[in-house]
Amino acid sequence: MRSGDVRALARAISSVENRSPGSSDLLKALFPHTGKARVIGLTGAPGAGKSTLVDQLARFYRKHRRSVGIIAVDPTSPYTGGAILGDRIRMQEHFSDPGIYIRSMATRGSLGGLARTTADVSTVLDASGRDLVMIETVGVGQDEIDIVRLAQVTVVILVPGMGDDVQTIKAGIMEIADIFVINKSDRDGAEHVEREIRTLQSLATRLDGWTPPIIKTVATSGQGITELAAAIADYESYLHSENLVFNKSVENWQERLLEMLRDAMLDKARARFSDGHLKRMAAEVAEHKRDPYSLVEEIANAGKQ
Amino acid sequence: MRSGDVRALARAISSVENRSPGSSDLLKALFPHTGKARVIGLTGAPGAGKSTLVDQLARFYRKHRRSVGIIAVDPTSPYTGGAILGDRIRMQEHFSDPGIYIRSMATRGSLGGLARTTADVSTVLDASGRDLVMIETVGVGQDEIDIVRLAQVTVVILVPGMGDDVQTIKAGIMEIADIFVINKSDRDGAEHVEREIRTLQSLATRLDGWTPPIIKTVATSGQGITELAAAIADYESYLHSENLVFNKSVENWQERLLEMLRDAMLDKARARFSDGHLKRMAAEVAEHKRDPYSLVEEIANAGKQ
Repeated sequence: MRSGDVRALARAISSVENRSPGSSDLLKALFPHTGKARVIGLTGAPGAGKSTLVDQLARFYRKHRRSVGIIAVDPTSPYTGGAILGDRIRMQEHFSDPGIYIRSMATRGSLGGLARTTADVSTVLDASGRDLVMIETVGVGQDEIDIVRLAQVTVVILVPGMGDDVQTIKAGIMEIADIFVINKSDRDGAEHVEREIRTLQSLATRLDGWTPPIIKTVATSGQGITELAAAIADYESYLHSENLVFNKSVENWQERLLEMLRDAMLDKARARFSDGHLKRMAAEVAEHKRDPYSLVEEIANAGKQ
Repeated sequence: MRSGDVRALARAISSVENRSPGSSDLLKALFPHTGKARVIGLTGAPGAGKSTLVDQLARFYRKHRRSVGIIAVDPTSPYTGGAILGDRIRMQEHFSDPGIYIRSMATRGSLGGLARTTADVSTVLDASGRDLVMIETVGVGQDEIDIVRLAQVTVVILVPGMGDDVQTIKAGIMEIADIFVINKSDRDGAEHVEREIRTLQSLATRLDGWTPPIIKTVATSGQGITELAAAIADYESYLHSENLVFNKSVENWQERLLEMLRDAMLDKARARFSDGHLKRMAAEVAEHKRDPYSLVEEIANAGKQ
């Protein structure tokens, strides 16, 4: 995989995604080879044109001979198989270029597994020698915040005319944006969105002293992509010049270690009872024979034995 | 609190929200008094008009002399204090009516705490004797799915003209919708949204045999609210007639018990090291001196001692 074999890469990612036996050893072996890729997170509401923007950025980096890995985190369902379909359509276009590897991931599963899986897939892409890893997520929830926490640079994509709650959306993501993009900026209302961002920015300064720039793009025509790439490079230079890279990485790892530990502890806890046992307990709670709070306390403490 | 004292209710909710000492005992004591409230979850993208719809539903139920508790899960930030502001504005209007209690909750904190807190607040409202608990969430992510899992009835709110990714949004929430609402249905495109839902519905049938109805509303004028309340009652009757209530509750509790166990395990894990210790380990990982996968394994196993 580290010699650039795309099939080996795909197999490694699948192994990590499915948490196959051996995937943990694989990650341990790959970790020392990570830390070289620049990880860029891109998030925004549905309809913001994220995929097109990511494609254009990938094209830009390919022109500059950088290899790219894309993780597209898509909501999907058994109804539509959204992620898989999207994967195919986008893969087709880039198929002839081994310098772009795209992986779509579904929001299937639960219990916060998606952030962890995205992190692990990013580790694999990083270790495989990709120069850039782009993580694209839909939505504005805690998931996205967990996912973009992996990234060195976080790009938040807005569009004009998102309706009455645009204030709310922006409020939730102001803290995580290192760069704002107003996509579809040829539409009415782009200036309005820009003014709102500036207003929110004027209310508080970031601890690291950076003021997130606002880049206007029209992803479908490629307009503004060069400026966006420059803004990404600017922010990275800023982090380096202020010696913030290491601090940011330590902060991220504190959160991630806690998340990983939580998952590991859950796996251990889950292993303590068969599905039948869990179902029986759930039935007792549903019948109000037992209160769930005491029950969980008992099981958690039983782990000490 | 159980005698209807609103101040006692507010204090109990704050205690649970802040996980104050004693809140766990409080929940244990309240649990036997729960199970009477009907819990309705309402979710949809930002701008879908959820708050207005929830207010109108609350008004409807109040007219029928049912007491209502509303949990509004809002994204917010230190920039705007969104949730608090929203709370005030909405509280003002209903202030004179102790039959409606509204609590806004921020998406602050992390590690999946929001779903758990919402569940606990819902437990308190249920135990306080509210006939209905409405949980309103923004967004389409895993958070929302975790949150609406609490509800007996889940209403998914769509609006016409959500842009190119409307397919994606609907795909992610098709499984959780017991009822679809097309709000702002006086706008162009309402029929288009309805057709798309029908198409997706035709591709698969639900395991429980229910076909989610599509209700058109204009929340600002109250249009369609009676129909929505009727659809909610219909679904509840269906669940009862098919003896599905208990099964659904057992399924929900299986997931919730696992989530609660995960959180309990994390608390235990976190207690194992001081913040300084965690930071030191994060620094070692950031420097690539240690791989995080082996590290987490070691700590998780150390819990056995």
